[in-house]
Amino acid sequence: MTRTPPPATQARPAPARRAKFRQFRTLTTRWADNDVYGHMNNVVHYGLFDSAVNGWLIEQGLLDLKASPEIGLVVETSCRYHGELAFPDLVTAGIGISRLGRSSVRYEIALFRGDSDTAAAEGFFVHVYVDRQTRKPVAIGPKMRSKFEEMLL
Amino acid sequence: MTRTPPPATQARPAPARRAKFRQFRTLTTRWADNDVYGHMNNVVHYGLFDSAVNGWLIEQGLLDLKASPEIGLVVETSCRYHGELAFPDLVTAGIGISRLGRSSVRYEIALFRGDSDTAAAEGFFVHVYVDRQTRKPVAIGPKMRSKFEEMLL
Amino acid sequence: MTRTPPPATQARPAPARRAKFRQFRTLTTRWADNDVYGHMNNVVHYGLFDSAVNGWLIEQGLLDLKASPEIGLVVETSCRYHGELAFPDLVTAGIGISRLGRSSVRYEIALFRGDSDTAAAEGFFVHVYVDRQTRKPVAIGPKMRSKFEEMLL
Amino acid sequence: MTRTPPPATQARPAPARRAKFRQFRTLTTRWADNDVYGHMNNVVHYGLFDSAVNGWLIEQGLLDLKASPEIGLVVETSCRYHGELAFPDLVTAGIGISRLGRSSVRYEIALFRGDSDTAAAEGFFVHVYVDRQTRKPVAIGPKMRSKFEEMLL
Repeated sequence: MTRTPPPATQARPAPARRAKFRQFRTLTTRWADNDVYGHMNNVVHYGLFDSAVNGWLIEQGLLDLKASPEIGLVVETSCRYHGELAFPDLVTAGIGISRLGRSSVRYEIALFRGDSDTAAAEGFFVHVYVDRQTRKPVAIGPKMRSKFEEMLL
Repeated sequence: MTRTPPPATQARPAPARRAKFRQFRTLTTRWADNDVYGHMNNVVHYGLFDSAVNGWLIEQGLLDLKASPEIGLVVETSCRYHGELAFPDLVTAGIGISRLGRSSVRYEIALFRGDSDTAAAEGFFVHVYVDRQTRKPVAIGPKMRSKFEEMLL
Repeated sequence: MTRTPPPATQARPAPARRAKFRQFRTLTTRWADNDVYGHMNNVVHYGLFDSAVNGWLIEQGLLDLKASPEIGLVVETSCRYHGELAFPDLVTAGIGISRLGRSSVRYEIALFRGDSDTAAAEGFFVHVYVDRQTRKPVAIGPKMRSKFEEMLL
Repeated sequence: MTRTPPPATQARPAPARRAKFRQFRTLTTRWADNDVYGHMNNVVHYGLFDSAVNGWLIEQGLLDLKASPEIGLVVETSCRYHGELAFPDLVTAGIGISRLGRSSVRYEIALFRGDSDTAAAEGFFVHVYVDRQTRKPVAIGPKMRSKFEEMLL
C-alpha cells in the first residue's frame, strides 16, 4: 500500500469499525471547527487525534506535562477522510497501537460521529520518545511499554 | 515507499529543499501555535498547508468561497516533521502538484523556517472536486487544469 | 463599573457561581488548548463561549446554519479570568441572558472546571441579529424572543 | 462608558484609526479563520491580539518563553467588532498601552484590514506580571517599565 492516494473513483480501503480499537474517548466539537462549507475543517481532526492520545496517556499516568524527563515528539501524522463531521456532533475517538519500536510508537485513531459504527475519518500518529533536554531518542521504559502492549491491534 | 514510518534510528528521506517547489507563500505564526513544549503543535502545520494552497487558489481566481459551483473536498492529508518551528518564526510554504487526476489533485507542501533551505516539515494534501450540492466528483475544468499543470513537480 | 480593569491587588467582583445561570453545557478540552505555560490559552475561552451559546441555539431550533434568513453577528465579547483551566479538564459552561433588545441579545457565560462551583472565567457575548444578505439589523422574532426570555438572569 | 453594549441602532464610539497606536505588526490570516458565514470567527481576533503583543515583547527582549522568572498572566480581554475580516486578508495590528500599574499593563489593540485606516476590530488585553512559580504579582522591573512607557497612548 503506497502513500499515493487513489483517484476518488477507485476503490479505497473501507472505513474502520469500532471493533478494531482498544480504547475510546468522547470529544465535543466546537463552533469554530466548522469551515465555510459548514463541516469540520480537515485540520481539526488532528487536534482530536492529539487530544485522544494524550488524554489516554495522562489518564494512564504515562504523561506528566511538567515533570516527564522524556517527551513524545510527533514525527509523522496522516488522515483519510471518509465522511463529514460538523459542530455540534459528539465524536468518539477509537485508539490503538499498530507498531511499537524501541523508542517509537504508532497510534491508529478513528473518529466516529455520534453512534455511528463506521469511521468518518481515520489516521495515524507517530511519537518518538526523546530526552526533554537533549532531544535524542530514548528507549521506551518498561511501565510505558507494558501499557502500550495492551493497546496493540 | 510505504506509509509505515521507519523507526527514528533508521534512515528517512532527506527533508525537501526550496528548489523542489513551484510557488511560495509567507505565513506568520501565532502565539497559540506553540504547545506546552514551546514549539509549534503538530496540528498547526496542516492549518498552514490549507492556507498556502487555498490562498494560491483564491489568488489565481480558481476558488470563490461563495460562488464556486464545485468545491475541493479534502480526502487525505499527511505530514512528516523534520525540525521545530515556533512562534514568532516567519514560515514560507512551498507548494506544487505531484498528481493530477480527472477530479483530484495532490499538492505537495513544505514549510521552511525563516531563511532555511531545508524543510522543517513536509506533507501532502488531496482535493477531490465535487459538485457543491450533490457532493459527487466532477471533472476538473480546463482553466483550472491548465493552472494545475503549471504547478506539476 | 467601568471597563478599566482594577490593578490586581485591588478587589475584583467575586467569581460567579453556578446558581446564577439558566443552562449548562459540558465541553471537553483539547491538547492544543494548553499554551507554553501549561494552561489553557486565553483565546480558547472564547471558543468555548461560542460553542456553548451556539450549541444551545441549535438544540432549541433557533439556529439553522444553512437556512436561517437571519444570522447573529457578534459585535462585542469580553472575558475575565479568575483561575486556571487546562487540558484534560472537563469544563461546564453556564449560560444566561442579561439583556434583550429589539435585535440584540447579551449572553453571560461562565466556565467551571470539573465540579467546581466557582467560575474559572466569565464573560459576555453580544449578538445582533441581521438579515443574512443585507446585514441590516432585524427584530428578533417571537419564537426566539420567547426562548430568550426564559434565559433572562 | 459602561460595559453594557448599546443596541446596534444606537451610537457606538467610532472605530479607532491607525494614528492612535505606537507599534504595528503585520499578520497573515488562515483558511480555518473563516467560519460558516465566510468571515473571520470572533475568536480569532484574540489570537491576533495575543500574537501582536507577545511578538512585540519577544522582539524587545522582554519575554523569553523558557527563561523569564516572571510571566504575564492574562486577567481580562475584550473586543468590539466593527467590520468584517476574512481569509485571505492581510491584517495589521496596532498596539499601545493605556494603563501601566505596579504589576499590570493594559494594551489597546486594533486590527486593520489591508490598507484601511479604520479598525475592523479593537479591544484590550490586561497582563498581570506574576512570579512563574508562586503566581503572586510582582512589580514590573525598570527595563520593562521603560519600554512600556514608550508605548503609552
